[in-house]
Amino acid sequence: MHSIRKIAKYVNGDIVGDSGLIIKGLCGIDSGKDQHISYIHEKQYFKYFLTTKASAIIIQSDHDFPSSGKTVIKVNNAANAFSKLISLFHNDNMFVPFISNSAIISDKSTIGKNVYIGNHVVIDDNVCIAADVFIGNGCYIGKDSIVGKGSKISNNVTIVKNTKIDQLVEINSGTVIGGSGFGLFTENGKHSRIPHVGNVIIGEGVSIGSNCCIDRGTINDTQIGDNTFIDNLVQIAHNANLGKNCIIAGQTGIAGSAIIGNSVTTGGQVGIVGHIKIGDHVTIAGKSLVTKSIASNQVISGIPAKNHKKRIKQEATINRLPNIIKNIKK
Amino acid sequence: MHSIRKIAKYVNGDIVGDSGLIIKGLCGIDSGKDQHISYIHEKQYFKYFLTTKASAIIIQSDHDFPSSGKTVIKVNNAANAFSKLISLFHNDNMFVPFISNSAIISDKSTIGKNVYIGNHVVIDDNVCIAADVFIGNGCYIGKDSIVGKGSKISNNVTIVKNTKIDQLVEINSGTVIGGSGFGLFTENGKHSRIPHVGNVIIGEGVSIGSNCCIDRGTINDTQIGDNTFIDNLVQIAHNANLGKNCIIAGQTGIAGSAIIGNSVTTGGQVGIVGHIKIGDHVTIAGKSLVTKSIASNQVISGIPAKNHKKRIKQEATINRLPNIIKNIKK
Amino acid sequence: MHSIRKIAKYVNGDIVGDSGLIIKGLCGIDSGKDQHISYIHEKQYFKYFLTTKASAIIIQSDHDFPSSGKTVIKVNNAANAFSKLISLFHNDNMFVPFISNSAIISDKSTIGKNVYIGNHVVIDDNVCIAADVFIGNGCYIGKDSIVGKGSKISNNVTIVKNTKIDQLVEINSGTVIGGSGFGLFTENGKHSRIPHVGNVIIGEGVSIGSNCCIDRGTINDTQIGDNTFIDNLVQIAHNANLGKNCIIAGQTGIAGSAIIGNSVTTGGQVGIVGHIKIGDHVTIAGKSLVTKSIASNQVISGIPAKNHKKRIKQEATINRLPNIIKNIKK
Repeated sequence: MHSIRKIAKYVNGDIVGDSGLIIKGLCGIDSGKDQHISYIHEKQYFKYFLTTKASAIIIQSDHDFPSSGKTVIKVNNAANAFSKLISLFHNDNMFVPFISNSAIISDKSTIGKNVYIGNHVVIDDNVCIAADVFIGNGCYIGKDSIVGKGSKISNNVTIVKNTKIDQLVEINSGTVIGGSGFGLFTENGKHSRIPHVGNVIIGEGVSIGSNCCIDRGTINDTQIGDNTFIDNLVQIAHNANLGKNCIIAGQTGIAGSAIIGNSVTTGGQVGIVGHIKIGDHVTIAGKSLVTKSIASNQVISGIPAKNHKKRIKQEATINRLPNIIKNIKK
Repeated sequence: MHSIRKIAKYVNGDIVGDSGLIIKGLCGIDSGKDQHISYIHEKQYFKYFLTTKASAIIIQSDHDFPSSGKTVIKVNNAANAFSKLISLFHNDNMFVPFISNSAIISDKSTIGKNVYIGNHVVIDDNVCIAADVFIGNGCYIGKDSIVGKGSKISNNVTIVKNTKIDQLVEINSGTVIGGSGFGLFTENGKHSRIPHVGNVIIGEGVSIGSNCCIDRGTINDTQIGDNTFIDNLVQIAHNANLGKNCIIAGQTGIAGSAIIGNSVTTGGQVGIVGHIKIGDHVTIAGKSLVTKSIASNQVISGIPAKNHKKRIKQEATINRLPNIIKNIKK
Repeated sequence: MHSIRKIAKYVNGDIVGDSGLIIKGLCGIDSGKDQHISYIHEKQYFKYFLTTKASAIIIQSDHDFPSSGKTVIKVNNAANAFSKLISLFHNDNMFVPFISNSAIISDKSTIGKNVYIGNHVVIDDNVCIAADVFIGNGCYIGKDSIVGKGSKISNNVTIVKNTKIDQLVEINSGTVIGGSGFGLFTENGKHSRIPHVGNVIIGEGVSIGSNCCIDRGTINDTQIGDNTFIDNLVQIAHNANLGKNCIIAGQTGIAGSAIIGNSVTTGGQVGIVGHIKIGDHVTIAGKSLVTKSIASNQVISGIPAKNHKKRIKQEATINRLPNIIKNIKK
């Protein structure tokens, strides 16, 4: 329960309406509740402004709404403001320090202060767990790994070995980090896996989804840059090197030794082949397949991926094709 | 071991041939065995009718086969009939109630009668496990979750938290439900994850494959309607809402806040972008990318997905393109 | 630490340069270190030859490099030679036999000599673990399964049941084998899962990545042929049958009852529909969707997949389309 005045101050916004309101919690705009606050960020939700049962709504200063009995808070970015409010009402990342009796921890490893180590966790030899780390149930933290201060590892995560995790990293459940890379060699038609003796190095503030796979490098390391966010079911192959502040959407696959710049964004189900280089600030549309190196500051799409605008034009031409051919026949 | 008469009655079919036959078990039509029964449902398997070593074959009344020494059972739908027979010969879903000593169960949680709780399972605070539930080895059932009557959760499954599972639900191994959604906000080029405080709500009779990810909602809930079937390695993002009786094939990804109607079927590796609405009885061909809302009763395919018939025509035109251009040059 | 002479002998190569060199370890060509050895296999790395800090480089006899102070070892295949060296310097597959007190092993199961059974492992009834097997932490090995001699199963792997694993097989972390297949039948609009009572059979020397799903067969078995290599997040559906020496890259999905020949190679994110047959020595480019049976010795690509060369030609025509239409209009 917070006053609307406290909320407005917290999100740096201006109240229009009843400034004496008390807010009990958050709600969706299409499932509004009395004494709850919601937000409108995208145009498709404008239609709920007059009908929602929410008592207060966060809106953007540059959006135009009719005057109504509703109390609104005007801000620069409604989605960001609402996100901050979630942290005000729910504090997800708090935990009471605890080490389960059922956890098996090597006496060759070091455990910091104020940690949570869940049930049936295994921490192998020469691991360093820093202070304020949370490790959920059933996780395995393999040999010679480091988990940095304040990092949070959910449940049933496997860190195979040799993984350096910086501080404030989040790893969701079921993810496997440091698995053997898929670098093979073939003699007389029979394949063997190249032994992979490299590490995985994960930067500060990185966030990784559920059931992802990030393989360790062959000789060099697989690296994820600071503040890069990775969705679920993503594959990052051996020796791949991701920059800072990237967003990698679900089910994307990045093949071996690919080098990805800073602030690269991919849609879902993107494929990036191995041994290519993608510049900074590249946006790759969902389901694209990137087959060659890409310069910085591009928006690309398609299979194979090309300049997005050109490809859309080409597609329009193809869509007109049956008519064009009809006309020619005439 | 069952008599052919009992079998015919069980599948509501008519025997043609030796009605005194005793059947020891089931077999594939291309790997037939003496005193075993098989079935033929699709035309591509007709060729095995005369050569199979199976002693009896279930066929469809409306399919035409030459007379032969084989004993057949004629039914309306051979595949369905055979499926029922599997339940007659094998009963997969029976278990002897058991709670492992190695399971760690919060005393703030409630456990129903006749349950199976496997080894190294963890059941956190305020969980309600109904009667007749099976929970396999190494599962984690997070805080404030409900598992309904007769539901079956396989091994190494993670239910992160706040998940309401209705009765008769099946969840296969390695799946993660209730993970943090991939809703981000960005300030000054740096990303943060919006705290996700919604639930996951799974309807009656839902079936979920192995190594899937179903994320919890931001404020509202992620929902899966009754009797919807989901294959392996599927991603269902935060706030997505699936209807009843859907079939979602392997490696499909459904992005945040997408609304899917009833009886929607997707092929494998389909992508559905966020914030769109798909009507009822829509069929989406494998590997399609759905980028806009789709009305009910459509068959769509392609990247981006369009009306399937139109797209096939267009593709045919494109395939004829080199010849058309040759002719024009002449 | 090994002498360059020993190394040259080990990889069957010829030294050019300082044959008295002592090598402390391996390094990447672009991150070379003094007294370390690297290799150059692909043209894009030629540029590092003169600038690398590596003291020795393995090169291919048929590649042409300028003379320099560097010590080189000439071999037939530089990548293969370097892979062997990794085994010389690091021995990844050695372990000290161990059975954890926290492992729960059915007394109806058989455990061979010199095995490693990690913490919190569960081995269910009627399982046979052969000698020299490694089973990592948190694995579940279900009823009626066999794990052959010298096989290595990483962490948090689930073998649901009825799985026959031949010798020298490698299974990476988080993978689920023997899950229920996605074979459904529908009556009055409601779906049911056909009970799947078949096995999974995995051949000698097979290697399977992390977080894969290989479902058990309906009546017949799902089979993976000897020496086939499977990358991460791959789905192999019920009754699929893969030949020997295949390479299946990451996030590929193979639908039910597909039959794949020997020495088939897929790129990443390939889809193969059910009930089709792919011949031997077929190469399928990344992100292709294979919708019909394919004869042996083909290279195919695209959605739907066709002969790769023809498709590339067709694509070139499409790329020229806007110009062609402009010319026609003139």
